[in-house]
Amino acid sequence: MAVNLVAPDNAHLYPVAGVRIGVTEAGVRKANRKDLTVVLIDEGAAVGGVFTRNRFCAAPVQVCREHLAAGQGIRAMVINTGNANAGTGDEGLVRARSTCIALARHLNISPQQVLPFSTGVIMEPLPADRIEAGLPAALADAADSHWLRAAEGIMTTDTIAKAFSVRAEVGGKTVTVTGISKGAGMIRPNMATMLGFMATDAAVAPALMQQLATELAEGSFNRVTVDGDTSTNDSFVVIATGQSGARPVTALDSADGQALKAAMLDVARKLAQAIVRDGEGATKFIEIRVSGGKTGEECRKVAYAIAHSPLVKTAFFASDPNLGRILAAVGYAGIDDLDQTKIDLYLDDVHVAVNGGRNPAYREEDGQRVMKQSEIVVHVGLGRGDATDTVWTCDFSHEYVTINADYRS
Amino acid sequence: MAVNLVAPDNAHLYPVAGVRIGVTEAGVRKANRKDLTVVLIDEGAAVGGVFTRNRFCAAPVQVCREHLAAGQGIRAMVINTGNANAGTGDEGLVRARSTCIALARHLNISPQQVLPFSTGVIMEPLPADRIEAGLPAALADAADSHWLRAAEGIMTTDTIAKAFSVRAEVGGKTVTVTGISKGAGMIRPNMATMLGFMATDAAVAPALMQQLATELAEGSFNRVTVDGDTSTNDSFVVIATGQSGARPVTALDSADGQALKAAMLDVARKLAQAIVRDGEGATKFIEIRVSGGKTGEECRKVAYAIAHSPLVKTAFFASDPNLGRILAAVGYAGIDDLDQTKIDLYLDDVHVAVNGGRNPAYREEDGQRVMKQSEIVVHVGLGRGDATDTVWTCDFSHEYVTINADYRS
Repeated sequence: MAVNLVAPDNAHLYPVAGVRIGVTEAGVRKANRKDLTVVLIDEGAAVGGVFTRNRFCAAPVQVCREHLAAGQGIRAMVINTGNANAGTGDEGLVRARSTCIALARHLNISPQQVLPFSTGVIMEPLPADRIEAGLPAALADAADSHWLRAAEGIMTTDTIAKAFSVRAEVGGKTVTVTGISKGAGMIRPNMATMLGFMATDAAVAPALMQQLATELAEGSFNRVTVDGDTSTNDSFVVIATGQSGARPVTALDSADGQALKAAMLDVARKLAQAIVRDGEGATKFIEIRVSGGKTGEECRKVAYAIAHSPLVKTAFFASDPNLGRILAAVGYAGIDDLDQTKIDLYLDDVHVAVNGGRNPAYREEDGQRVMKQSEIVVHVGLGRGDATDTVWTCDFSHEYVTINADYRS
Repeated sequence: MAVNLVAPDNAHLYPVAGVRIGVTEAGVRKANRKDLTVVLIDEGAAVGGVFTRNRFCAAPVQVCREHLAAGQGIRAMVINTGNANAGTGDEGLVRARSTCIALARHLNISPQQVLPFSTGVIMEPLPADRIEAGLPAALADAADSHWLRAAEGIMTTDTIAKAFSVRAEVGGKTVTVTGISKGAGMIRPNMATMLGFMATDAAVAPALMQQLATELAEGSFNRVTVDGDTSTNDSFVVIATGQSGARPVTALDSADGQALKAAMLDVARKLAQAIVRDGEGATKFIEIRVSGGKTGEECRKVAYAIAHSPLVKTAFFASDPNLGRILAAVGYAGIDDLDQTKIDLYLDDVHVAVNGGRNPAYREEDGQRVMKQSEIVVHVGLGRGDATDTVWTCDFSHEYVTINADYRS
């Protein structure tokens, strides 16, 4: 049961000129499932990608990195669910490359112009033959209006498809930004996990795309956590087709660059937050703001210590204003010279702790009122400087254990 | 329901000459509970202590550090349950000192010769008056045979008291080592948490005690985790009374030092493992051995990444050999130059993964057999060097969520 997240409405998902999407049922793991998606990108688009930092990365992630580095211009993506092609050794690399070769043949391009993505069961051989056999049907389905189909096609155990669009004025034209994502826990029982794809018809200098993808990920997917586990397959790809006719963005800190980045960050953040809202067993959506740090990095450490504490997360599930747990997490976050007497803690507008101790004016019923909400802001002041950071997470419920303790089915 | 942990038998808990213990009901939080323990230490004993690294440390932890640093010779400890005196600001410090002053008056010693310990609810004022009123009864109860009473007296939500004794030949005599501990999660719903106390009648040069305490903690309490949360109150104290008549240990790497340390580590490790066995909701006891690292530290990082992963822990609860989760945790443990093709994984004697992929000879039913055991050894080989490390943890069950989501009662 996702937290305040509704299914996307196709009428509000705008096509992006230069991108077509086709989806089919390839029978990767089970029959009668949309499990194969191809994304076709017109020549001249610029593409950047950000991938898992997990050293145990999946074969398709390794191939994506190689193909982006080859610099031939990405023209297509092939995405399967049902099998993650992770923990599959050299044979996994061979199979990931094989799907790229097959799609490249259909499109008369180089295999290095194809990016592969897989999500699903870990440590099982990828049925590349079934994926390759499904390509003609996926290609026949290709249309620029298929973003919602793609959002559904990349779902594994997500309960709701995740897709968002915005339009913005950039470079003298109205440009479109549309994106989709999937993921529910950082690793589902046997699913490997987060995927995000975004496209815009704005024009961006190719040299900027990697930086743009990194900055967008930093402000969105790298600020959410369900359970602190980092998947072997996490991938986020950004495409700029340039077909809006807007003048090209040649610097991210230009007015055009800022306008585009703001629009794209809006979509990226909604996509990332949707993963938390659909988090395994989530009943609450929690924003953790940390201010008053010496650096953004130390704020982030504190925010993640809170967001990852099973004790804090179970207290949110129970609507229990057991706020010593939050203070304890602040204390072990790893700031060696933290002065506990400078710490402030707020739950929404309720000032819970001041100078590291209980606020004399704090009343338990006020904390209780906020804890019962489905959306909660936790604000910690460190009293050390001017830096801030924010992460988003969910609570930790019986349902999380049920989902993750279920024998793989 | 603790995992393979039985209640201590008083007949096998040996007194330590020079240490007497008294326990009483002081009504700190609830009536009719043994909640106040005093430990009386003869003059001439050497004492060392290790305390939480949480920057949000409790008032008694701060006072312990001061009093140990004062170097006057520790002669007594005062330990209460029911209230952690954490998150209590300056007033908390005043009250912790007040209990030391009161006990010092009874014993005609300096307050700096008293160490205070508190465990229980966070962010509530310590009822120092009730503790002080209970001191005469606790002192009247003092006897060298009261280790089991003390183990019971420091319990909060532990389901079983934790106490162990060994005897060993050190310095030409048989010496005794006896210890107690408490703790069930790193922080119970509102409990702040781990306490460990050990005493020996071996003689140890006072200058060595801090190092001895640190090394013992490193090999025991710093190698266990229930949920990754670090309490505000964690304290571990080691006492050497010297009353066995054994010649003093003057270097930890001498033969006598090694013999004593081995005996003490045996007790410390049992005490630490008992906390995991009694971990919140634990149904399994898991040893995680990591070998083949370049350094012990990187082995420890990998072991803790596995031990803290909610996905790994729920898989153990489910007896599901979902071993991709363990490989994923190895991958995100923070070794930047990890080569996934060198990774081996064993469950007990079952070789699950080789060269970073599934072992062709691995059969799911073998993994399943091991996962059903109540005691499981996970062994990860990193293939990078000769260093090793081991941590101990438990699984993650519905009961954990139930315990921690319960409204404070």
